[in-house]
Amino acid sequence: MRPTIEWNKNKVIMIDQRKLPAEETYWECIDYEQVAQAIEKMVIRGAPAIGVAAAYGIGLGMMNIKEDDNRASAFDIIYSRLEKTRPTARNLFWALERMKKIFQKNQNRSLSELKNTLLKQAQALEKEDLETCQQIGSYGADLVKDGERILTHCNAGALATAGYGTALGVIRSSFKKYKDIKVYASETRPFLQGARLTCWELQRDRIPVVLITDNMAGWLMNKGEISMVVTGADRISSNGDTANKIGTYTAAVLAKENNIPFYVAAPLSTIDFELQNGDQIPIEERDPDEVRKFGEAFITVPDIEVRNPAFDVTPASYITAIITEKGIARRPYHKSLSEFK
Amino acid sequence: MRPTIEWNKNKVIMIDQRKLPAEETYWECIDYEQVAQAIEKMVIRGAPAIGVAAAYGIGLGMMNIKEDDNRASAFDIIYSRLEKTRPTARNLFWALERMKKIFQKNQNRSLSELKNTLLKQAQALEKEDLETCQQIGSYGADLVKDGERILTHCNAGALATAGYGTALGVIRSSFKKYKDIKVYASETRPFLQGARLTCWELQRDRIPVVLITDNMAGWLMNKGEISMVVTGADRISSNGDTANKIGTYTAAVLAKENNIPFYVAAPLSTIDFELQNGDQIPIEERDPDEVRKFGEAFITVPDIEVRNPAFDVTPASYITAIITEKGIARRPYHKSLSEFK
Repeated sequence: MRPTIEWNKNKVIMIDQRKLPAEETYWECIDYEQVAQAIEKMVIRGAPAIGVAAAYGIGLGMMNIKEDDNRASAFDIIYSRLEKTRPTARNLFWALERMKKIFQKNQNRSLSELKNTLLKQAQALEKEDLETCQQIGSYGADLVKDGERILTHCNAGALATAGYGTALGVIRSSFKKYKDIKVYASETRPFLQGARLTCWELQRDRIPVVLITDNMAGWLMNKGEISMVVTGADRISSNGDTANKIGTYTAAVLAKENNIPFYVAAPLSTIDFELQNGDQIPIEERDPDEVRKFGEAFITVPDIEVRNPAFDVTPASYITAIITEKGIARRPYHKSLSEFK
Repeated sequence: MRPTIEWNKNKVIMIDQRKLPAEETYWECIDYEQVAQAIEKMVIRGAPAIGVAAAYGIGLGMMNIKEDDNRASAFDIIYSRLEKTRPTARNLFWALERMKKIFQKNQNRSLSELKNTLLKQAQALEKEDLETCQQIGSYGADLVKDGERILTHCNAGALATAGYGTALGVIRSSFKKYKDIKVYASETRPFLQGARLTCWELQRDRIPVVLITDNMAGWLMNKGEISMVVTGADRISSNGDTANKIGTYTAAVLAKENNIPFYVAAPLSTIDFELQNGDQIPIEERDPDEVRKFGEAFITVPDIEVRNPAFDVTPASYITAIITEKGIARRPYHKSLSEFK
């Protein structure tokens, strides 16, 4: 398998995550609009991965400008298109802001130097994300014991990042360290990232994994079959409130009720230090047909009213610890997270 | 639409609930084995409805015996087949036991009288179930206020009973009484009773309904968009612990955490007075392919390990009240339920 996302001969190439695990096909982008659409349509998803994609989107968009074009206005158009793709994940904006700084610093150099510098920055961001995940994995494994039965929701794996994963990074590192680790993957309706992506990723790495529907985790916790929870994050406010895939709040409440630790694994690029709390995080509401359909077939009355929030916010009080590349943060997060800033 | 289940010209006819809402087709049984398979395959489902089906299964099985057959051994064979169909719902066993008493009392009468008496009993049980649901609805509506936003899980509606429904009976009666009632139906993976059946039923009755995935209810409670929960039940032990569709426990924990009332609506035939608590309720584990597939297509790695418990048990401590046809029971349920016995 090729990486989740890569730069290859003036193209950005991504594995098409909508088709997995049935088909391993690739989405090739020759302009930034295709990158923007890939993010919107969830060809690529996962907060760190869409950050990398946005950076490559800038790189690709600027690669195509001509000597006579107005660089600043070209940059703004590309930037504006990419920042409108999805609203919740902090990493998207974080990556775009980093690219903007590089642009501003280098915009008066020769066009080829500018293009090269932007591309190098996007590639650096990809490499950095992989290393970050490995550090998260290493810190996180310290919180895991042998024999652990770990629930994870959605996919915070290699597919959600430049590689290795955040929550699945913790699981990968734990699996290297211990003999007896087993993962419960909740399927994660409506997009089925758990069933389609997490099961596929973990099975390829021969990490034992059990698939459950989203409504089963609570009962398995109550029966003592799940001993901890680890998820990724899309945006964390400065007080530790965490937006992540819809269903994460539910898993956190269930963990608290059953005295099971609930961990969030995320790079510092996911933390939005400008937000005081989770109420300020914008929550994307997606197409109702994602809920009404499974593949192309309607599973309900076709014109039924639907709610489809893609994320929820887990209050910091439910989160046992936040695992970052600089170490493990505990309550009060306002203090512990700012120390990693 | 014809009833959920009916006796018609020496056949038992049921709407095929696996095909709804895409197709309205009927499953016709000319022998008890077809009734048993209908229960196993979930052509018919819902605790009260499978109780009625089992009673008709006895009636149909005995209708086909001949003058020379050994009545008692024929009855035992039919009874044994039907009682092995599904393990959790109390109503199945309750209905079979009622049919057995009628058989024992009438087995020495003429064969045509015996057949007629058993059929009449099954029909009486169907009629009684409909009336019971209407009484549950009437009592339950007293717990509902105008403006209520009601979460229900799975389908405890007309399709799960002889008609009107238990949880949906409460909703139907409330909708008659008040102007502003809205229902949130969780889709109920893996079998999608919420998406397929509850949405279909409520839309036909013009009761406003919003479809959500199972992992959204918690977040909507937290945001104040859901104000109460009402579900059905498959078996209630004498202390009030309630087995119901997988995911019910999760909804109850979320309701408690968000200070929202959580109601169970069920006929007294669902109560197993011989069980002291929910640990004694057998929980059915169904075919893993129900989780691996959606329709005929795999949604995950085909050989992935799966858990598929069809029910969970909600401890009585999470249940605000149990709505029965004789009135509303509150904690301690051991006392309040036994008064309705």
